[in-house]
Amino acid sequence: MSKGRLEAFSDGVFAVIITIMVLELKAPHGADWAAFQTLLPVFLTYVLSYVFLGIYWNNHHHMMHATDRISGAALWANLHLLFWLSLVPFTTGWMGENHFAALPTAVYGAVLFMSGMAYLILEGRLLKSGNRRLADALGNDVKGKISAVLYLAAIPLAFVHQLIADTIYVFVALMWLVPDRRIERRL
Amino acid sequence: MSKGRLEAFSDGVFAVIITIMVLELKAPHGADWAAFQTLLPVFLTYVLSYVFLGIYWNNHHHMMHATDRISGAALWANLHLLFWLSLVPFTTGWMGENHFAALPTAVYGAVLFMSGMAYLILEGRLLKSGNRRLADALGNDVKGKISAVLYLAAIPLAFVHQLIADTIYVFVALMWLVPDRRIERRL
Amino acid sequence: MSKGRLEAFSDGVFAVIITIMVLELKAPHGADWAAFQTLLPVFLTYVLSYVFLGIYWNNHHHMMHATDRISGAALWANLHLLFWLSLVPFTTGWMGENHFAALPTAVYGAVLFMSGMAYLILEGRLLKSGNRRLADALGNDVKGKISAVLYLAAIPLAFVHQLIADTIYVFVALMWLVPDRRIERRL
Amino acid sequence: MSKGRLEAFSDGVFAVIITIMVLELKAPHGADWAAFQTLLPVFLTYVLSYVFLGIYWNNHHHMMHATDRISGAALWANLHLLFWLSLVPFTTGWMGENHFAALPTAVYGAVLFMSGMAYLILEGRLLKSGNRRLADALGNDVKGKISAVLYLAAIPLAFVHQLIADTIYVFVALMWLVPDRRIERRL
Repeated sequence: MSKGRLEAFSDGVFAVIITIMVLELKAPHGADWAAFQTLLPVFLTYVLSYVFLGIYWNNHHHMMHATDRISGAALWANLHLLFWLSLVPFTTGWMGENHFAALPTAVYGAVLFMSGMAYLILEGRLLKSGNRRLADALGNDVKGKISAVLYLAAIPLAFVHQLIADTIYVFVALMWLVPDRRIERRL
Repeated sequence: MSKGRLEAFSDGVFAVIITIMVLELKAPHGADWAAFQTLLPVFLTYVLSYVFLGIYWNNHHHMMHATDRISGAALWANLHLLFWLSLVPFTTGWMGENHFAALPTAVYGAVLFMSGMAYLILEGRLLKSGNRRLADALGNDVKGKISAVLYLAAIPLAFVHQLIADTIYVFVALMWLVPDRRIERRL
Repeated sequence: MSKGRLEAFSDGVFAVIITIMVLELKAPHGADWAAFQTLLPVFLTYVLSYVFLGIYWNNHHHMMHATDRISGAALWANLHLLFWLSLVPFTTGWMGENHFAALPTAVYGAVLFMSGMAYLILEGRLLKSGNRRLADALGNDVKGKISAVLYLAAIPLAFVHQLIADTIYVFVALMWLVPDRRIERRL
Repeated sequence: MSKGRLEAFSDGVFAVIITIMVLELKAPHGADWAAFQTLLPVFLTYVLSYVFLGIYWNNHHHMMHATDRISGAALWANLHLLFWLSLVPFTTGWMGENHFAALPTAVYGAVLFMSGMAYLILEGRLLKSGNRRLADALGNDVKGKISAVLYLAAIPLAFVHQLIADTIYVFVALMWLVPDRRIERRL
């Protein structure tokens, strides 16, 4: 199984997800500062989700770069990952519109958590197909596992105070923002 | 005729179809559990259609993988398949919004049936161009034909009771969820 | 200049244009036959525009297949073509919503005419770069020129009676539906 | 690091951005000339933004063509550029709807300025990775720097009179419309 088309399809889905998110930024009805300010929470969630999806695209790019063989099961694991990522625009819009209210913030965390799990499952599938270069590059993927645990913790914490959950989301994003070195160095 | 651009274009269309479907998941106006629950039927149809389109992408991927020659007629057969698949987001939204009412459920089945027929036509076109590897891998494509018959049966049955049709849709999806082995094994 | 990325970008734009058109097919508010019937004019324009864009993609595919060299001017001629094609979803929606009223039908024709002209300009640019294989395959492109003239005639005729214009659009589409042979035969 | 997937992903994002902008062109509710005329400011902003994005795609295409090595930092610099470009449809819609009012016109300029800066940063990252062919082709990129300065000047000038800012946007676009020669000639 060649990985070319898996990459092309994934890139297409990533490109559409990351771009349609901007459709949630609806042009305000006025043209003054007051109208502009109402955009702020929506804009902030857009930035957060853009970074989040950028990290996934980047990691996906590196993972596939180190992959040689792809099984049928990996194709489905990849579709499964894209499914959860495709829910990001919806949860982003819901959270932004409700100014980071508790439930949308928790649901946002749940989608991030499921995306993280789906990524780990895809990783597992690729390792099972005997991609030795990938195995060397990844090591234990401690970072991936810590992220999943943090997202899981953020879900109930959103009901204690939303800011705790939001801080966790920003923290995990910062943790990943320079992730490339890991695989880059070893190749 | 090279198959590269056919694949690239199809991947693009698949990626957009599968992703714009999520635009039907409109952010509810409240931020509480009641608002969240109203999303359930829309979410369920999204999952069903996502799996359905994932199966088509997967099968399309495998079919093209085993294909060497593409005729002008196959290009049109491919566009014809994508036409019916492009109607999936619309019928998904209509069915979800009306909580699986009879007519939308039947129309959904009709689109699935036409997609199935279009797939068989594309298959026929590719076999006619003398793709022997594909002929070996496909055999009779009994599964494809059974699916089409089941979808056709689901259309009138939706008017008897929607749950019968919905059960058929889920059953066909499950039947395909591990379809890759067939071609994978022989290559 | 390599043609790979021109093709990839064009395929992306074609894929998005052809797919977002379906967003004009808004799910009707009821779930009965009356609601379904209101969709008919919108659906018919969707089919017409889908075929129209399919023809362009197909011809673009064949033209690029026979092209070896691409100049900077051809990149812009290609963007110019995509500009007019990108207006198709808008005019399709406007014509469908107004049940083929005179003005939207004429504007639809104008967009088809400008697309046809843009295609001829792109062809000219590619021929100027010395793509001999393309020159051999195209001949005079009589069909392309006739189509442009017919579209131009349809614009004022839409104000005499819309059906005249609509008939012209369908006629040109049918004229192109099997266009591939021309280049295919010579390659 | 291969540049193939960076190009594919960027092309996907460019294709989606340039095409979803047309969704801002909402079909007017009437079918007469009065309804058509209300579209004019929205249409003009669409043309401006289309040309603007076309220039970026074109320059991006040429820049990547002359690039051999891509670092992890360049991947992020590229995502950063796409972030600002992804805001173009939103600002285009806002400016068009408000008939080029002062604040939306200034915000439009700010997004153009940030895109220009992001492009220069990406350029810097690529040069730092030792892409000698790119360094030769670019020279000082005086044009890129002048554009950024002009956009920056347009932001406060939009509050003096919108037409000044709009004129600057059109002027910069014209300045770039034949940019290809520069790299083309040297390759």
